[in-house]
Amino acid sequence: MNCILLCQGRHCLALMSLTQNRLLICAPPALCEPLVHALTTAAQVTGVAIEIATYEHWDLNALAFVPALIFCDPQLALPEKTSWITLRQHAPLVWLGKPSAPQVQQSYAFDLWGYWSFADTQQLALACVQILQRLVHERMQNACIQSLQEAHQDLQTQLALLRQDQEAGHFVQQKLLPPSQMQVAGLDIHYALYPSLYLSGDFVDTLALDEKSALFYVADVSGHGASSAFVTILLKYLVTRACQAFISAPTKTHPPSPADLLAQINTQLLETDLGKHLTIFLAIYDRRTRTLTYSTGAHLPVPVLVGPQGQAKPLPMQGLPVGLFAGVQYPQYTCQLEVGAYLVLASDGVFELLEAPSLEAKEADLHDKYIQCQGDFARLQALLKLPCACPDDLTLMTISGF
Amino acid sequence: MNCILLCQGRHCLALMSLTQNRLLICAPPALCEPLVHALTTAAQVTGVAIEIATYEHWDLNALAFVPALIFCDPQLALPEKTSWITLRQHAPLVWLGKPSAPQVQQSYAFDLWGYWSFADTQQLALACVQILQRLVHERMQNACIQSLQEAHQDLQTQLALLRQDQEAGHFVQQKLLPPSQMQVAGLDIHYALYPSLYLSGDFVDTLALDEKSALFYVADVSGHGASSAFVTILLKYLVTRACQAFISAPTKTHPPSPADLLAQINTQLLETDLGKHLTIFLAIYDRRTRTLTYSTGAHLPVPVLVGPQGQAKPLPMQGLPVGLFAGVQYPQYTCQLEVGAYLVLASDGVFELLEAPSLEAKEADLHDKYIQCQGDFARLQALLKLPCACPDDLTLMTISGF
Repeated sequence: MNCILLCQGRHCLALMSLTQNRLLICAPPALCEPLVHALTTAAQVTGVAIEIATYEHWDLNALAFVPALIFCDPQLALPEKTSWITLRQHAPLVWLGKPSAPQVQQSYAFDLWGYWSFADTQQLALACVQILQRLVHERMQNACIQSLQEAHQDLQTQLALLRQDQEAGHFVQQKLLPPSQMQVAGLDIHYALYPSLYLSGDFVDTLALDEKSALFYVADVSGHGASSAFVTILLKYLVTRACQAFISAPTKTHPPSPADLLAQINTQLLETDLGKHLTIFLAIYDRRTRTLTYSTGAHLPVPVLVGPQGQAKPLPMQGLPVGLFAGVQYPQYTCQLEVGAYLVLASDGVFELLEAPSLEAKEADLHDKYIQCQGDFARLQALLKLPCACPDDLTLMTISGF
Repeated sequence: MNCILLCQGRHCLALMSLTQNRLLICAPPALCEPLVHALTTAAQVTGVAIEIATYEHWDLNALAFVPALIFCDPQLALPEKTSWITLRQHAPLVWLGKPSAPQVQQSYAFDLWGYWSFADTQQLALACVQILQRLVHERMQNACIQSLQEAHQDLQTQLALLRQDQEAGHFVQQKLLPPSQMQVAGLDIHYALYPSLYLSGDFVDTLALDEKSALFYVADVSGHGASSAFVTILLKYLVTRACQAFISAPTKTHPPSPADLLAQINTQLLETDLGKHLTIFLAIYDRRTRTLTYSTGAHLPVPVLVGPQGQAKPLPMQGLPVGLFAGVQYPQYTCQLEVGAYLVLASDGVFELLEAPSLEAKEADLHDKYIQCQGDFARLQALLKLPCACPDDLTLMTISGF
């Protein structure tokens, strides 16, 4: 049996506890004596230690202990308020001698272990060996099931504890994310973030710099789960702090620059020495000039601008990952946006959803879907069959209203 | 059986798969015919669907399928290279008719299910019912064990995934902690941090402000685990950044002030809106004047200064938790330290280790241990029976060399 190794300790226990097992025999001496003899021999043969209690009649004392096995003459009158079925709930039953036809019918309902009437002592001896072996086997099976159930319970408790912890962490991380749909400086932003575990290494944020301009980014920290989630918190803090001076200044001069922001985050992340880096696309949209100014740290897939005629244009971009090399400078790009255009951002988890054979083919497929959705976020999710169980953190974002 | 509910789906499967079960009978027609009749009746009575294959002799064809149960005449010659034990590995065995004495001996080794030689057809009928019931019961037990084992495996996989994630998070958090023993501006600092889970809401840091002065703190974020660990990362970042200007300045004017630092952290933590607060003891030691300047945000237990004559003096302190109320100002204290004195800090997890009946009694006990250890960190750990499984995050720190 497979589980012998698994719960060996308990099996030993089960076998040892058989030393305390008492077999109950309720039958006239003529049936009783050869049975006691055969059981005693069988106990020696099998190495199963037993005690035998014999009664000539059913007696309340007979059930004052918990028997491991009951042998009884089916013809003896049962104790008051006792049926064969209630007896069977105490222990397996073996009938000695002939049952009546109604008793046979009844026995079908309760899994009788035996109906013995042996003239042949060899047959009786063998039956006694078999029944003790069956008893031990049954005990082992039950002990195995019990220990597995206990182990199961134990694992579930441990799992619940960790899940609870991760959920609390998830809750904190969620509080740091913006609402899933919002208007910022007149932009319509929709996004969804699907962590592969509870905690996410993907992160998204938006900041209204003033009434007419907004900053937004999608970032993907190396790895996933708790360790990466830590870095997303730091990232949010760094970006917010860097913009705070501009946001709270009474006169808006020197707006933050995406390239400078990435260079700062790069330096600060390296200083933490966490061994974590991130890819990021960070942009500032200015409604006054209808321009998008952006920088990127090796972010994939490349964000795509879909024009009002439905043409998809991947944004030109270059830039090393953030937090990997000291002193990196990030190129900064600016582009003019047309009315009716929309921008689609994603993290690389999106590639796991696409079945095309190569990265190029996946990108082409993705761009098709970006066009098909016509900037409708719910439709884009449906085209990508989201939500689903994601093997990697996955973020998807559409920005329209330029 | 307890597990019926637990793995009901699989039990149904086990019962259903009995429809494909074939019973194998190898015996002369005289034994075979009444048995087939009795089994067929028993199958109707028990609702167990069976197929019966009968052979007059042992035959390789007889084992070309996997039987659920084998009935056989022990007198028939076994197929070549087959023993009773190898047969028993295929299926449970029932002997029909008289075995030889050596066969009986052999049977002790392999858990024979039965040795039948019934003249009485009623007895045979009942035995057939019993054996089919036993077969179903055995199947159910095995299916139950198998499904529990699978569930166990599944939980272990899930648990391993979460543990791995938490361990990765733990690794990142460890990297943010200082070494467990160090010299900073001539101070000897020893500490240990025992998270109740993998991730800790307790946090410790030290910073050399210049050659002669150092900042150190012990903090305890509300809650524990991932969500609290997030805040410790933010805390480290906030304190480091606030001190950075002073550390990197060529001329050291305006050293950071503990009270101002706590007020800043209070504001910034409230701004994150994480719903998390913390208690903290934050101090700066200046070797030039041998003074300790400190502030506290409701930190317990109160840090204790043990003088060179072994007298314990809890540091006077007042201050609200950090991150709970806006605009809080923190009192700042300064004290002169004697040569040979040492300071002991802890987080409130330490109270869980003490058995005294009240908080006052626990504090008194703690102070005794602080004195007894004579500033030796390892001895203090031993007095507190650390390391042990801590129900709450626990931090302990000694600072000497004033």
